[in-house]
Amino acid sequence: MPKLDLDTIPQSNATGYPPPFDAPVAGRWYRRLGPATGLTDFGVSHVVLKPGAWSSQRHWHIGEDEFLVMISGEAVLIDDAGEHLLRAGDCASFPKGEENGHHLQNRSDTDCVFVVVGGGTDLGGSYPDIDMRWTADDRYVHKDGTPY
Amino acid sequence: MPKLDLDTIPQSNATGYPPPFDAPVAGRWYRRLGPATGLTDFGVSHVVLKPGAWSSQRHWHIGEDEFLVMISGEAVLIDDAGEHLLRAGDCASFPKGEENGHHLQNRSDTDCVFVVVGGGTDLGGSYPDIDMRWTADDRYVHKDGTPY
Repeated sequence: MPKLDLDTIPQSNATGYPPPFDAPVAGRWYRRLGPATGLTDFGVSHVVLKPGAWSSQRHWHIGEDEFLVMISGEAVLIDDAGEHLLRAGDCASFPKGEENGHHLQNRSDTDCVFVVVGGGTDLGGSYPDIDMRWTADDRYVHKDGTPY
Repeated sequence: MPKLDLDTIPQSNATGYPPPFDAPVAGRWYRRLGPATGLTDFGVSHVVLKPGAWSSQRHWHIGEDEFLVMISGEAVLIDDAGEHLLRAGDCASFPKGEENGHHLQNRSDTDCVFVVVGGGTDLGGSYPDIDMRWTADDRYVHKDGTPY
């Protein structure tokens, strides 16, 4: 059935971030909708950010386009240009290869919900605010390549 | 700037559907967000459906996955399994190759807004309710291949 029953799709707050970078995303609860519904051409996640939670460390992708649309609540999008409030219906695009680190912070006192889409090839990427990047084979390493 | 100013992105209700199949989508006003914002790994459109409008003729894709999320208002999703009301936050997935024709109808008296994502390769597809299909080179033809 094309309409999704989100309650039946597993929700997780798991992260591979090493400490202390994992703490800010502990309140990020996501559902991977692609595998759950037979989509393979792009990835799509339904994300609930609890008050105080971040969507990720501020990051950018070498080989994957990213798009998000806010569904409810509000969050602050932070990138190299500053801070931008996102409310229901607001959209944001992050073309691959643009070295403009971005993430969302829920600074409100209620949950916010968004859908995020990713496509292309995971060639790794980087986190401008911390000594970490990720590799094409999906390992977190220091900027000099030393593993965490 | 990653956050989109939707008002600056061109909006169109153009369709290549031959008459009379074009009439039900005259109130479908869409913005192509991918080209406007530098995304190439998937297609993404922001769509406003006026009261009475359809999102498309009921269709399915041979080679492209499709995903949609309702942002505001409501519409009826129609597929082979029947009718399903979609409200803000509801999601639907349409894996490529599943011959389950689907579309949305706005039967309410206010606009509804959704975002729809498409990926993969356009190999054409079909419209189960009418004598039409579209080809991999994006032409509308009768089911027997005769051009419109």
